Amino acid sequence: MKPSIPKGTRDFLPNEVVKRKYMFSVVESVFRKFGYLPIETPAMENLQTLAGKYGEEGDRLLFKVLNNGDFLKKADTEALSNMDSAKLVSSIAKRGLRYDLTVPFARFVVLHRNELQLPFKRYQIQPVWRADRPQKGRYQEFYQCDVDVVGSKSLIYEAECVQIYDEVFAKLKLPVLIRINHRKILEGIAEVCGIADAVSAMTISIDKWDKIGREGVGGEMQKRGISAENAKSVLSLISQDDFLELASALKPSETGTLGIHEVQEVMQYVAGSHLENEFRFDARLARGLDYYTGCIFEVESPEYASGSIGGGGRYDDLTGIFGMPDIPGVGVSFGAARIFDALEQLELFPDDLQFSPRILFLTIDKESMEYVFGIVSRIRKAGISADLYPEPIKLQKQFKYANALGVPFVAVIGENERLHEVFALKNMSTGHQENVNFDQLLKAIHII
Amino acid sequence: MKPSIPKGTRDFLPNEVVKRKYMFSVVESVFRKFGYLPIETPAMENLQTLAGKYGEEGDRLLFKVLNNGDFLKKADTEALSNMDSAKLVSSIAKRGLRYDLTVPFARFVVLHRNELQLPFKRYQIQPVWRADRPQKGRYQEFYQCDVDVVGSKSLIYEAECVQIYDEVFAKLKLPVLIRINHRKILEGIAEVCGIADAVSAMTISIDKWDKIGREGVGGEMQKRGISAENAKSVLSLISQDDFLELASALKPSETGTLGIHEVQEVMQYVAGSHLENEFRFDARLARGLDYYTGCIFEVESPEYASGSIGGGGRYDDLTGIFGMPDIPGVGVSFGAARIFDALEQLELFPDDLQFSPRILFLTIDKESMEYVFGIVSRIRKAGISADLYPEPIKLQKQFKYANALGVPFVAVIGENERLHEVFALKNMSTGHQENVNFDQLLKAIHII
Repeated sequence: MKPSIPKGTRDFLPNEVVKRKYMFSVVESVFRKFGYLPIETPAMENLQTLAGKYGEEGDRLLFKVLNNGDFLKKADTEALSNMDSAKLVSSIAKRGLRYDLTVPFARFVVLHRNELQLPFKRYQIQPVWRADRPQKGRYQEFYQCDVDVVGSKSLIYEAECVQIYDEVFAKLKLPVLIRINHRKILEGIAEVCGIADAVSAMTISIDKWDKIGREGVGGEMQKRGISAENAKSVLSLISQDDFLELASALKPSETGTLGIHEVQEVMQYVAGSHLENEFRFDARLARGLDYYTGCIFEVESPEYASGSIGGGGRYDDLTGIFGMPDIPGVGVSFGAARIFDALEQLELFPDDLQFSPRILFLTIDKESMEYVFGIVSRIRKAGISADLYPEPIKLQKQFKYANALGVPFVAVIGENERLHEVFALKNMSTGHQENVNFDQLLKAIHII
Repeated sequence: MKPSIPKGTRDFLPNEVVKRKYMFSVVESVFRKFGYLPIETPAMENLQTLAGKYGEEGDRLLFKVLNNGDFLKKADTEALSNMDSAKLVSSIAKRGLRYDLTVPFARFVVLHRNELQLPFKRYQIQPVWRADRPQKGRYQEFYQCDVDVVGSKSLIYEAECVQIYDEVFAKLKLPVLIRINHRKILEGIAEVCGIADAVSAMTISIDKWDKIGREGVGGEMQKRGISAENAKSVLSLISQDDFLELASALKPSETGTLGIHEVQEVMQYVAGSHLENEFRFDARLARGLDYYTGCIFEVESPEYASGSIGGGGRYDDLTGIFGMPDIPGVGVSFGAARIFDALEQLELFPDDLQFSPRILFLTIDKESMEYVFGIVSRIRKAGISADLYPEPIKLQKQFKYANALGVPFVAVIGENERLHEVFALKNMSTGHQENVNFDQLLKAIHII
């Protein structure tokens, strides 16, 4: 039997795991500094918790876990006799795999409300599963990385989102552009353009700006029933790069003006903190999701590619769907897969991630191997990773192994080295070789 | 709708996640030092890969993932009309959730054989899923933590297993007893006791020693068809605490003597490395699993509780089931949940895991809050975690929040502090309070 793995899933080899660990450790160190704490939720949630939360498309893409035991016993007999798969599901599968981190977080907040102090600041880095058709760069299992604070309306948290984005990407050495807008500004624009009843159609259209451009957005709005004239006014307002001009145009709208004031306050908070990346207001930023109600954010890396590598915003009501209304919050997420790709493409992963031992010992004979085992143990005790090839086979083969592992140092030990307690230490990147004693060896391979 | 999570699954709150991260980071740091590299496999495997690998019981406990879309279209119609759940499964679910880390690792080795250098040293720390009936301390989703090397028969890897156990538990400050035995020694014992054809019955019986004791094991052997006299000889041999005496008793058995020599060689390797925990041979150690063929290990923590917190051993053929024979290996696993419990019970988690910010600022008025936001940003820039309460509500309430978070330091800021640029810094564990300037504050809250 030839083994395989399910379409759309991946194995991760050591150098990928090590790089991803590096990436998440940078992200986590920033989250922790800002007072966000890690939580984890189970991979399986009750289907009741997940169903209906991601639209029709989402429901279809949920992975459902078959009930154990004699699941047909409680199966919906009508659905069975009609061979109606969709209708049968809920009677034979009561669990599903996590589809994102937001719904499980909302469920978590409600379930643990008596154990949590509000405002509750959490981050969560876990895989999610979606039965999307697999294609290049799109997988059925992938990591998400979210940071949110719930239980406060304070705008300092919007400022924190910006600071967190800035610091994470500064630490990763990936230059980014962070954009901010406000849903109420978009509402205000709709109001002053006379299409208050078509905010949603307008927002959905604007959300496509990066893909279809100004003309395209104009056409999209008209396709969605907004008159050519009104669409033109919208386009003119969202193209306004002067924030104060826009503010003045929105004066007639109370909602729009509230949005303007909130963005200004966030800008003020952020102003004191010397960002290392570009941060700017952009009225053309819309974000697809319905549930945002305040500031929205998006971050991209122009050097890498167009398109977002992260986004988020404020929502008024995270947990209402689970019977606990009026818990506002704000948060952003990091597009782990795209950020990983960007770091890879721009060669920003540190050279010294050290996914192989610092030194590999090769031996000429069995006695040397036994001798070297003791040496390796001593090096490890000194806190340095080290290893030996486990058989005194042909040196050429042992060197091949050393090369494949990518170890920075190699030492060959035979009778001579053993008797004189010296090590023929070879630096694998420079090719330089010298005889050293144990202390010199430790010093040479030690990471500064 | 009141939310809940599936029976047998858990949410992890911040202080649990932080503790688990600490535990695994200790484990990982040791693995890495010994040259083991991390891999990850997908949560879902093809059911074909998993089925039949864990016995009948295991097959029943596998979580199966329902095929997406109109799964009934390809359903086994005969099974459907017979309402035969067991028979229907394979036609409506082609994926299952990972049940352990061993089978996926074997599948991984075969699938990636051209990318791997043998000997391949890997570790893997990921959750697994089992549809076990939930009960205290038994969950349907839990972490496993395995370290293995495949592609070599060298006994230095057995020695490494012992050293790894020793160093991990030394670093965790959890004193343990590491025991070693050898499957060939057990075979030898069976041989010299005249029950060479009943090794398996003997091994299964001995495996229960910790639970049912000497008498019980004797009875168990007889129940399994071993004569009272032979059972007595077995009991006498496995109770032999003098290794050399046992060796001499096994002289007539070639297999048994081979086992003795291998254990001796491992002992020799280990002897040079000054273990911090007790390590000893124990002929009463049997291990349940069939696939072990050489040394076997088990580790327990007498101060915590009886029973194993880890175990493992050598196997001759990991990947034969996937069509790639003769890949030997050896590895051990760490019982993450029990080790976590032991660390909790014996209060061995470090005090300074710091799952809350070092300092929380409380404010008297809105102006102070805005001022403090800048201060907090500066502290974070200095690499120290810090936070502020986001509203100038009643101080008592803000202090309650500080207490709940468990922050080590609190500073209250009002107009006076703001104008004089001083901070009323309170050490929350000693109750000591003093006025300090910014630099003094940084110094006071910095972790040494």
